[in-house]
Amino acid sequence: MKTEEKLNMTMLCDFYELTMGNGYFKNGYKDRITYFDVFFRSVPDKGGFAIVAGLEQLIDYIENLHFTKEDIEYLRGRKLFDEDFLTYLENFRFTGDIYAIPEGTPVFPREPLVTVRAPAIEAQLIETFTLLTINHQSLIATKANRIVRAARGRTVLEFGSRRAQGADAAIVGARAAYIGGCHGTACTISDEMYGVPAGGTMAHAWVQMFDSEYEAFKTYCEIYPTNATLLVDTYNTLKSGVPNAIRAFNEVLKPLGITKCGIRLDSGDMTYLSRQARKMLDDAGWTDCKISVSNSLDEYLIQDLLIQGAEIDMFGVGERMITARSEPVFGSVYKLAAVEDEEGNIIPKIKVSENVGKITVPHFKKLYRFYGRDTGKAIADYMTVYDEQVDDTGDMELFDPEATWKTKTVYNFTARELQVPIFLGGKCVYERPSLEQIREYCRQQVDTLWDEVKRFDYPHKYYVDLSRKLWQIQQDLLRAKR
Amino acid sequence: MKTEEKLNMTMLCDFYELTMGNGYFKNGYKDRITYFDVFFRSVPDKGGFAIVAGLEQLIDYIENLHFTKEDIEYLRGRKLFDEDFLTYLENFRFTGDIYAIPEGTPVFPREPLVTVRAPAIEAQLIETFTLLTINHQSLIATKANRIVRAARGRTVLEFGSRRAQGADAAIVGARAAYIGGCHGTACTISDEMYGVPAGGTMAHAWVQMFDSEYEAFKTYCEIYPTNATLLVDTYNTLKSGVPNAIRAFNEVLKPLGITKCGIRLDSGDMTYLSRQARKMLDDAGWTDCKISVSNSLDEYLIQDLLIQGAEIDMFGVGERMITARSEPVFGSVYKLAAVEDEEGNIIPKIKVSENVGKITVPHFKKLYRFYGRDTGKAIADYMTVYDEQVDDTGDMELFDPEATWKTKTVYNFTARELQVPIFLGGKCVYERPSLEQIREYCRQQVDTLWDEVKRFDYPHKYYVDLSRKLWQIQQDLLRAKR
Repeated sequence: MKTEEKLNMTMLCDFYELTMGNGYFKNGYKDRITYFDVFFRSVPDKGGFAIVAGLEQLIDYIENLHFTKEDIEYLRGRKLFDEDFLTYLENFRFTGDIYAIPEGTPVFPREPLVTVRAPAIEAQLIETFTLLTINHQSLIATKANRIVRAARGRTVLEFGSRRAQGADAAIVGARAAYIGGCHGTACTISDEMYGVPAGGTMAHAWVQMFDSEYEAFKTYCEIYPTNATLLVDTYNTLKSGVPNAIRAFNEVLKPLGITKCGIRLDSGDMTYLSRQARKMLDDAGWTDCKISVSNSLDEYLIQDLLIQGAEIDMFGVGERMITARSEPVFGSVYKLAAVEDEEGNIIPKIKVSENVGKITVPHFKKLYRFYGRDTGKAIADYMTVYDEQVDDTGDMELFDPEATWKTKTVYNFTARELQVPIFLGGKCVYERPSLEQIREYCRQQVDTLWDEVKRFDYPHKYYVDLSRKLWQIQQDLLRAKR
Repeated sequence: MKTEEKLNMTMLCDFYELTMGNGYFKNGYKDRITYFDVFFRSVPDKGGFAIVAGLEQLIDYIENLHFTKEDIEYLRGRKLFDEDFLTYLENFRFTGDIYAIPEGTPVFPREPLVTVRAPAIEAQLIETFTLLTINHQSLIATKANRIVRAARGRTVLEFGSRRAQGADAAIVGARAAYIGGCHGTACTISDEMYGVPAGGTMAHAWVQMFDSEYEAFKTYCEIYPTNATLLVDTYNTLKSGVPNAIRAFNEVLKPLGITKCGIRLDSGDMTYLSRQARKMLDDAGWTDCKISVSNSLDEYLIQDLLIQGAEIDMFGVGERMITARSEPVFGSVYKLAAVEDEEGNIIPKIKVSENVGKITVPHFKKLYRFYGRDTGKAIADYMTVYDEQVDDTGDMELFDPEATWKTKTVYNFTARELQVPIFLGGKCVYERPSLEQIREYCRQQVDTLWDEVKRFDYPHKYYVDLSRKLWQIQQDLLRAKR
C-alpha cells in the first residue's frame, strides 16, 4: 500500500467554502452545529438503483484534514481573510460526526448517503471533497454493476485507465468498478494500492515487434506458458491470428501438458469472430482456451452479443465503464438539513425550489430498509426523524410522500438501519471492511432487490417513504417559506 | 506550488506493459529503439478541432519515473517476472526522446500529438500515463474552448469539482479548462498548485444559516464589501432574492461608494430571470452589478441564452465542462510507428485494420502547419517523413490521402513545424511556458482558424495531408500486409 504518498486534499475545496468559513468565523457562527446531507436526485442511465462507493477515500481525507503553512500563506496572499481566521485554520481539524451508508449498498434517490454533523465551518469546508469522492466512485460502481449483470456470470475486467479522466479516475475508478462486481483491472497501481487484481498480456505493439505474428505468439507462450492470452487481430483475426495462436499453443503448450490459454479479440464483429474462433479452437482440441473481447463494450452491447450466441468468456471493458460514458455524472448534492440552537435543540432546515424534485427532506434523519422475513428481499426504504423508532414486529402502513393517498401495508418484515457512524467527535469509529468484503456485500445486497428493480430500461420504482412525522415537518416548513 | 506532494505514477501502467517489458527483456529486445505516436481519430462533439493539453503533467511523470522498493516487491510477489528484469527495473529511468505539440495548440485527427523514441521497454511502459494525461486534459481544454467561444467574450468560470471524476480530474481539469479559455475556477487547490485564478462567494447554506435572506446578504456585504456576489435563488429569486440583494447593496455598499457587486442565479429560467433582475438592478441604480448564472450550462445553452437576449455577464459551468458530459472520452491511442534495426535504420511499421479509419500513418514523421502569409490563417497541416524538408518559398500541391484525386494548391504560405523536442536522451530540453502563456498561445492559435472550422455543428473539415513520400510508404506497407 502506497499510503504514505497520499496527497493532502484539504485545499481541494470550492473557494466559497473558505469565504463562507471566514464569514461564519467573523459572525460568531464558527461553533454553530450544522447537519448536512449528501443525496442524489436520479439514478444514472435511468437505472433502478445506484451502488454507493467512495467512503474509504472520504475517511482518509477527513483523517488527513489540515492546512499546511504553504496553504495558509497562499490564503493570506489572497487578502480576503482575517488573520484570526487564518490562525484558526492553522489548527483546523475535523471534530464532528459523520454517518454514512456503507460502500457497496444499493441506494435510491433522496436517501442521505452521508450525513455530516459538525460546526458550520468544518461541515462547509468538506463539502467539495465529500461530494467528489462519493459522486465519482458511486458513478463507476453503479455503471460497473450494470455491466457485470449484463455479462451474466462471465468475467468482466476493467481496462480503461488510458481514457480515464485523470490519474485518480483510473486508480480509484478501478477500485469502484471492483466493488460494483468487476473481477479485475488492467491498472497495476490499483492492485498495489487497493488489492484490485491486475492482469494483462500483450498489446498490438508486441505482435508488430516480431518479424511474424507466429513468432510473436510462440515467444509469448514460451515466456508465459501458464498465462498466455494472445491478441489475434493485428493482421487478420481468422486467417492469420487464430491459426497462428493454435500453432503456438500446439508447439509450446501441448508438450508441457498445458490446456489453459486464451485469445483476445479487439476489433471486428465480436459475435461472428468469437463463434468462428471458438469452432477453430475446439476443432484443434483447445476447448479450454478462453475467448476475451475488448472493443467499445457496455451493458447493452454485452447483452446483445450474448443474445446472439457470441462465444465469449471474458469482457475487457474500457472507456464506457471508466468514464461512465453514457451518463458521466453522479449528481449528489450537499444540503443543509438542520442546525442546532444554543440549547442544542435541532432546528430542521429546508431548501425550497420552483422544481418540486429539488425540495430537500429536512432534519436529522434515520434511514431504514425493510426486508421481507420470508423472501429476504428488500421491500421499501423508510426515512424518519432521528428520534423515531421503527417497530418491525407488526404491520406498517407506508405512503408515497408525493402522492399521499397512495399507501402500502408492509408486514412480516425486518428493519435494518442503513447509515452507520463513521466519525464521532472527530474520531473514526468505523471498522473498515476489506475491499473483498465490500464487493461481496454489494453482491449480496443487489441480490436482495427484485428483478423488476434491476431492469436496465424502465425499472420498477422502489419505495423510499417518509414517516408521518418527518413528512409533516417538511410540509410545515414548506408552508412557512411560501 | 505543492510539488513535493506529487505522487509517483510509475505504477499507473497497464499490467501488460510489464509482462511485455519482461518479454522484451528476456528476448533481447530491451534496447531495441521504437517509435510510438499518440494520435486521436475523431474530435469530441463532432467539432472541427481539438485543443491539445496535458504535456506538463507528462513531463512531471517522465522526470519522476522510477520504481520504488515497494513496487519491485509487489511485482516480485506476482511471480511472473524474472529476477534479472526486476533488477533492471530497480534502476529504470527514461532515456529516450519525446517530441510533442505544445499545449494549447489546435490539433486534428491522425496528427502525432506526442512521439516517443525510446528502447522498447521504456516506450511501452509510459503508454498508459501518456495517453491518460493527454486524453484527459485535451478533452477538457477542447470542451472548455467550445464553451468559452459560445460565451462571446463574457466571463466563463469552471465550477465542477464536486462532479469531477476523482480528485485529479478536478485539479488538473481546472488547469485544462483555463488553457481552453476559462477565466478562473472555484477549485482552490488548482489556484495554489497551478495558478488558475480561484474565486467564489456563497452557497445556499450561507443564506439558510441566517434568520432571514436579507440578514445573510447584509452580513456578507459587510464582510466582503468589494467582493459581494449574492446568491439570490434560495427562496424566490425575483420576489425575495433580488430585492433583498438591492437592499443590502444600498445599505452597506452605497455609503462606502462601492458600485461593483454581483448576483448569482442558480435555478429557474435564466433568460427570463436575468432580464428581470437586470431591470430591477438598473432601476435601483446598480448598473455595475454583474449577473452570474450557474445551472446546467454548456455551449449550446449559453448560445441559446444569448440569442434570447439574456442579460448575463458571467457563466459558472459545472459538470458539463469538468466531465465533458456530452462526450466524456478523448480517444487518443498509442501506436508503434517504426523500429530501428541494429544499424540504426528506421523501419516503418503499420497497424492494418478492417476499419480504414483505424489504419495508422507509419514512420518517424514531421508535422507542419501552413499559414497564409497575407491572412495569418491556418490553411492546412502536412505530415512528412522525418528527413523531408518543406519548401515554403513557392507553391505546393497537396492531395487528400484518402481520395488522392482531390488536390489543392497552396501558395504564399509559411510552414511551421508543430512538434518540438521535449526530452532528448532522457533529459528535458523543453522550456516550459507558464500557464498564462499557454492560455494566451491557445487564444492566438484558435484565432488562426477560419470560422467554418470553428462551427459547433458540421464544421468544415480541415486538411491534414501526407507528403507523397509518406503516403507511398503507407501504401507499400498496406500492400505488403495483405
